[in-house]
Amino acid sequence: MNRPTPVSAADTFVEMTQIVLPSHANNHGTAFGGQIAAWIDIAAAVSAQRFARRPVVTASMDQLHFLKAVRRGMVVILHAQVNQAWTSSMEIGVRVEMEDPITGERAHCCSAYLTFVALDDGGDPQALPVFDPGADPTAVRRADAAQARRDHRLKMREQRKLEP
Amino acid sequence: MNRPTPVSAADTFVEMTQIVLPSHANNHGTAFGGQIAAWIDIAAAVSAQRFARRPVVTASMDQLHFLKAVRRGMVVILHAQVNQAWTSSMEIGVRVEMEDPITGERAHCCSAYLTFVALDDGGDPQALPVFDPGADPTAVRRADAAQARRDHRLKMREQRKLEP
Amino acid sequence: MNRPTPVSAADTFVEMTQIVLPSHANNHGTAFGGQIAAWIDIAAAVSAQRFARRPVVTASMDQLHFLKAVRRGMVVILHAQVNQAWTSSMEIGVRVEMEDPITGERAHCCSAYLTFVALDDGGDPQALPVFDPGADPTAVRRADAAQARRDHRLKMREQRKLEP
Amino acid sequence: MNRPTPVSAADTFVEMTQIVLPSHANNHGTAFGGQIAAWIDIAAAVSAQRFARRPVVTASMDQLHFLKAVRRGMVVILHAQVNQAWTSSMEIGVRVEMEDPITGERAHCCSAYLTFVALDDGGDPQALPVFDPGADPTAVRRADAAQARRDHRLKMREQRKLEP
Amino acid sequence: MNRPTPVSAADTFVEMTQIVLPSHANNHGTAFGGQIAAWIDIAAAVSAQRFARRPVVTASMDQLHFLKAVRRGMVVILHAQVNQAWTSSMEIGVRVEMEDPITGERAHCCSAYLTFVALDDGGDPQALPVFDPGADPTAVRRADAAQARRDHRLKMREQRKLEP
Amino acid sequence: MNRPTPVSAADTFVEMTQIVLPSHANNHGTAFGGQIAAWIDIAAAVSAQRFARRPVVTASMDQLHFLKAVRRGMVVILHAQVNQAWTSSMEIGVRVEMEDPITGERAHCCSAYLTFVALDDGGDPQALPVFDPGADPTAVRRADAAQARRDHRLKMREQRKLEP
Repeated sequence: MNRPTPVSAADTFVEMTQIVLPSHANNHGTAFGGQIAAWIDIAAAVSAQRFARRPVVTASMDQLHFLKAVRRGMVVILHAQVNQAWTSSMEIGVRVEMEDPITGERAHCCSAYLTFVALDDGGDPQALPVFDPGADPTAVRRADAAQARRDHRLKMREQRKLEP
Repeated sequence: MNRPTPVSAADTFVEMTQIVLPSHANNHGTAFGGQIAAWIDIAAAVSAQRFARRPVVTASMDQLHFLKAVRRGMVVILHAQVNQAWTSSMEIGVRVEMEDPITGERAHCCSAYLTFVALDDGGDPQALPVFDPGADPTAVRRADAAQARRDHRLKMREQRKLEP
Repeated sequence: MNRPTPVSAADTFVEMTQIVLPSHANNHGTAFGGQIAAWIDIAAAVSAQRFARRPVVTASMDQLHFLKAVRRGMVVILHAQVNQAWTSSMEIGVRVEMEDPITGERAHCCSAYLTFVALDDGGDPQALPVFDPGADPTAVRRADAAQARRDHRLKMREQRKLEP
Repeated sequence: MNRPTPVSAADTFVEMTQIVLPSHANNHGTAFGGQIAAWIDIAAAVSAQRFARRPVVTASMDQLHFLKAVRRGMVVILHAQVNQAWTSSMEIGVRVEMEDPITGERAHCCSAYLTFVALDDGGDPQALPVFDPGADPTAVRRADAAQARRDHRLKMREQRKLEP
Repeated sequence: MNRPTPVSAADTFVEMTQIVLPSHANNHGTAFGGQIAAWIDIAAAVSAQRFARRPVVTASMDQLHFLKAVRRGMVVILHAQVNQAWTSSMEIGVRVEMEDPITGERAHCCSAYLTFVALDDGGDPQALPVFDPGADPTAVRRADAAQARRDHRLKMREQRKLEP
Repeated sequence: MNRPTPVSAADTFVEMTQIVLPSHANNHGTAFGGQIAAWIDIAAAVSAQRFARRPVVTASMDQLHFLKAVRRGMVVILHAQVNQAWTSSMEIGVRVEMEDPITGERAHCCSAYLTFVALDDGGDPQALPVFDPGADPTAVRRADAAQARRDHRLKMREQRKLEP
């Protein structure tokens, strides 16, 4: 592999800002879930590419929780970073906040964990660089939690295979 | 509540068909994850409304697994139905298949579980009708699995609240 | 031709479900005609491909009647199937219903007849499989009506050619 | 009615220009039928409003014939004008040409006839101004042909009502 | 060069018509600036292609002034023409008017000057035909003003290069 | 006014990240100018709102220079901040960089200056907070340059009023 140096969570940090326009809203005047999921996917893909420096594809989206409805006109700020990486897949955490443009007040409105796979030139999974959370305690905690989620995801996938 | 009759999974079944057009594709020529998530959200919302007969909002998307890349030109068929319902929230399962328009071959390419909340006129959660999977063994199995996932989701949410 | 077996109307049946979102609506708060026409074209194209198992292009849209305005928030269900096929073109009928998400009431809101042509690898019209409506009286009636419409379409096309 | 003066076809003339971008194209690299239908609907709506000076809704699209595929990168020019008007509905003719941006060559690629209804403030059909094709022989010919098409449309609608 | 004949401003005239739909509007119910800029860019690109008969790319947008807010439902009419051309770039002027669909009243709501570069087959700038404003005094005045703006643009670009 | 404290350039900083998808690209496979202008408008609007804490509308876009074509698949990063403010309008500077997802290389590809006006509840211009660039020499230099551009803009607007 041509990138033996470990890559840190900070190297993969992405910030995306959006305004909820009428074309993003459902019929209650709030951003519809699928639109926020689409923004989360883009922000996470940029983060995954910063880690892998390869083309990437989304393998899963998990625990995408909508904590608060996001009204039209609200500013949406997404933060994404790689939490942990394995042989050929990595987990990206995305935190979404909304900012009231008039009061400036911010609130956590959505979160998600996504896994991405990097692809080699033939479209097959590509080995990833080593991930090093570094000394930052938040990054270390996220890396540990990502490992626990991965164990759970693999377990769930096994269970689904057994379903008729 | 004005609908004392239990509602079955079959009453909530939704089929949605799409073609993957260039405007849905990423730069690898396959449907981008966020687009499929957006379609899943719409199909699930229709299913949730058929159960609740109320306005609904997405509360979470989980285990959205992309099993196969969906190339431009492929036909995408989504099936959604309510798996289980609780006091004010319900789980919808969505299964996504792709159909090769030339060979007619179908393959399972994506799945997801979503939870929706129904809203009363004031925008607060609304009590839901009773869910009755009925005698269909698949519906019974799905209802049980949904209950297990809900227990896990609540546990995960608790854990996240404890994170600094 | 490699598909000597006749293909029936049922083999080509397509169901598509949509929610009318603000981005689909005109300034009266109802789905704008062009958006519904776009959905009809997609549903019909999937049906035409199921018949031809070839790439297809729209040749005409006819008798696209908007019987009722479809308000934002309404669920739209499209049903498409091949009505009749000729040497290299086929007619697809599309029926559009709207479903009120709160009452569950359904109403027929739009219909259209489209013709599609299948293309060979060089982009030229491709001979089609034989269409067999089967014993279903609705399919038989539709096949006969499609034949009458085709005769009228050809006559109209002739007249337009004669216009200065 | 506050507009006793007859309105001519020329008063309602609309020109719309578009470039076929990747987001308008299907998987053959040509404008997909539904996109062209959407543009036709917008151009015709502007023309209908110039006649009625009221909000309008599409009542039907007819004889939308795609004569030639329109490749990505082509310029599309739509011309719309009112052909004929009755008590509360009017027919708009739309002619679509494509222009090769490199050679400048133009070709007729699509046509359609649409009917629109004008609405009063309560959303009910509104009486229309008198249509006067004037002395222009093309406008006179179009007005006559529109009358013939209307007769056929009404006949067809009757037939469909009789279908089971 | 294979087009030694001078091309006039009139040869490059483009008219584009749009309706401001909810999907084009911001949260104040008016067309958002970026949407109008996108329409301006398309209209200007068609005009630039009519002059160069080559693929073109936008080099700059300048003095895009929004004089009046354009409410949802308004008709927007864009007029574009080449004002002046140099070795490999040309200036296009775009004037945007809005038309009230009910009263028919028109108002000038936006203007912009854009420069485009034509590309040869290798993607490098391509020499342009000679521009001849002709005898029309408006075209002559525009050509002179475009020359003055170009001088200012080049001066501004120099200043920016000097900024740290 | 309820915000007597001066607001600094840093308080208004916005970062937006996008991937150039096929739906953003023109027929040369690069982001089309109008799409980048639309992103610039959104980023600038968020920055203007952070300064004014009021609804804002775009008044002008200037010196939007496309320095390099941005290919499909490139990551686009926009930075916006208020450069200077006057009684009821403010200038926002936007710098656009593209990042090659594989090499990580970044290049400056576009810049623009926009002016926005804040609106009071009646839709009229609203007095703005005081702008204080602070001690940062870059912010001070930008504030001075914005003042010079404003003088030029006002002069240009005068000239245009005099044009027939």
